[in-house]
Amino acid sequence: MLTAQYVGGHTVETREAEPVAPGPSDVRIRVAYTGLCGTDLHVVHGNMDTRVTTPLAFGHEMSGTVESVGADVTSVAPGDAVTVMPLDWDGTCPACLAGNQHICQNLNFIGIDSPGSLQELWTVPERVVVPMPAGVRLDHAALVEPVAVAVHDVRRSGLVEGEKAVVIGGGPIGLLIATVARRFGGDVVVAEVDAKRRAQVEELGFTTLDPRAVDQVAWVNEWTGDAGADVVFEVSGAAQAVLGATSLAKVRGRLVVVAIHPQPREIDLQRLFWRELTIIGARVYERQDFETAVQLIADGDIPADTLITKVVPITAVQEAFGLLEQGAAMKVLVDVQSGAAK
Amino acid sequence: MLTAQYVGGHTVETREAEPVAPGPSDVRIRVAYTGLCGTDLHVVHGNMDTRVTTPLAFGHEMSGTVESVGADVTSVAPGDAVTVMPLDWDGTCPACLAGNQHICQNLNFIGIDSPGSLQELWTVPERVVVPMPAGVRLDHAALVEPVAVAVHDVRRSGLVEGEKAVVIGGGPIGLLIATVARRFGGDVVVAEVDAKRRAQVEELGFTTLDPRAVDQVAWVNEWTGDAGADVVFEVSGAAQAVLGATSLAKVRGRLVVVAIHPQPREIDLQRLFWRELTIIGARVYERQDFETAVQLIADGDIPADTLITKVVPITAVQEAFGLLEQGAAMKVLVDVQSGAAK
Repeated sequence: MLTAQYVGGHTVETREAEPVAPGPSDVRIRVAYTGLCGTDLHVVHGNMDTRVTTPLAFGHEMSGTVESVGADVTSVAPGDAVTVMPLDWDGTCPACLAGNQHICQNLNFIGIDSPGSLQELWTVPERVVVPMPAGVRLDHAALVEPVAVAVHDVRRSGLVEGEKAVVIGGGPIGLLIATVARRFGGDVVVAEVDAKRRAQVEELGFTTLDPRAVDQVAWVNEWTGDAGADVVFEVSGAAQAVLGATSLAKVRGRLVVVAIHPQPREIDLQRLFWRELTIIGARVYERQDFETAVQLIADGDIPADTLITKVVPITAVQEAFGLLEQGAAMKVLVDVQSGAAK
Repeated sequence: MLTAQYVGGHTVETREAEPVAPGPSDVRIRVAYTGLCGTDLHVVHGNMDTRVTTPLAFGHEMSGTVESVGADVTSVAPGDAVTVMPLDWDGTCPACLAGNQHICQNLNFIGIDSPGSLQELWTVPERVVVPMPAGVRLDHAALVEPVAVAVHDVRRSGLVEGEKAVVIGGGPIGLLIATVARRFGGDVVVAEVDAKRRAQVEELGFTTLDPRAVDQVAWVNEWTGDAGADVVFEVSGAAQAVLGATSLAKVRGRLVVVAIHPQPREIDLQRLFWRELTIIGARVYERQDFETAVQLIADGDIPADTLITKVVPITAVQEAFGLLEQGAAMKVLVDVQSGAAK
């Protein structure tokens, strides 16, 4: 079968490999689509070389169809459309014992710490398989994982109906957070420096701000009757955005840091103090977030066709990263069966 | 009557002044003691010159006895021992309307934004007066305000019985937070660089750490069975402490930033993300915190005699700040009646 593997040295290669034989508790999935995300980009850029074992068939945003199941598998059957929640925890560390398995202290993030879904046939434990309702398109189903991220971020924010939220950064995750926050009753504005992205976000009915052209603090104060935003989502990854984000929040407002900031960032702790703000870290998702994401996609609440900019064959993964690096694409899906006889 | 006033130019002078005549809703208090705190030090250092109107009789940690009351006052009578919760809010701003009056967007912090308790006779609105139970020593009662800060900080942390807390900084507020956290069932360790302060904290039965001599992360991991602390209180004000504080917290742990950080500080957002931490701002106190503080002092739960390093006459306020600057004192009280005929 074909796989796309990160082989080190910033390089992705399409390689032939033997499928892994499923054990009694495993499910073999014929992968339909795999989405490429910012974390994959970090992998390919070599930023995670101390963590990943090469060659690595990466990929963790996916959809597919069950090909075969081990003898003990009961929850899915061959032919079922499925996705995978790519978290495998040890169940014994302090975080797991406290009920936070999704951020297990020894988490196996499947597709980074172990082989992922850029393989025609992918074998995973039954416990990470999530069934898709009938009738959901498999390209849309490949968005469940990033939608689950957004659901988790919004849930971590504590957003309730009628609250005002600022999303800083209008890339794929920012757009999904805006979509989910609005779906849950929030009134949302998206701050984004890139005009093309602002246009895409506006097409989905959101108000946008250009942080380089508008005094955001004044704008938000005007918007909120001098209160400030209930919730701010920092999704840009920019140092300046983090520093300014606290100034947009109301007294007792919440700032959710969604973007990855590998370096320590300056935070306005005077403002944190003055307004009794809360800064909240959010990572991946819990099973309930994943199931909510499945439902949102099944219900057509996610603008999947806007998000999916391009579908590329499995032989073109390296080139697809070029598009992502240039910011020329929201979401690129890999058609994992493109190399197979059709 | 005598007052101690910040007159600008880093100078405190003892001056004669006319007492303010109480209106119908006011209470005139014969001030017994006024504690000096870090905020007063900021005032006298000129760091708050854009905020304060000079000359200012500052001071906001106090105790005293009601001297006389306006015609409409019903809650206290002459002779009653009282303290003052020095917050006066407008009741109309978005923060007040949302129930967060204590951090009103137009808060009058009495003793900074308006005259405080370094006056022999101090007139305040009845609504800020808090009665003290009979039998509480007035020097101890002057600690209610800083104890209320600690109560608020601990309450903001969400600490529950059996949780493990690290308090970074063993000065007066750190010591009070440690005391309150322990009183509420927490298991507390205090990290403090100064050997003399560590000794004081240990005398009160706390475990201490010297962050310069011990690998704090390893120590906390050992202490918590590799989980990390449930709560970390950053009370030191040091940049390095803020940066390291996140590494001490467990998955979903809480970091309460208590110290004032006038400059933006670097925060390890990678760690915030990785462990889904929450960073919580805490400012002043709510009425319930103040009343809890009154009770803790009345019950003898606060080591008042350890905290009160020195009592100085009202003529020696400037010199007293010298002691605080050198870190040579925990809490200095001003005996406000010291200039009166006794």
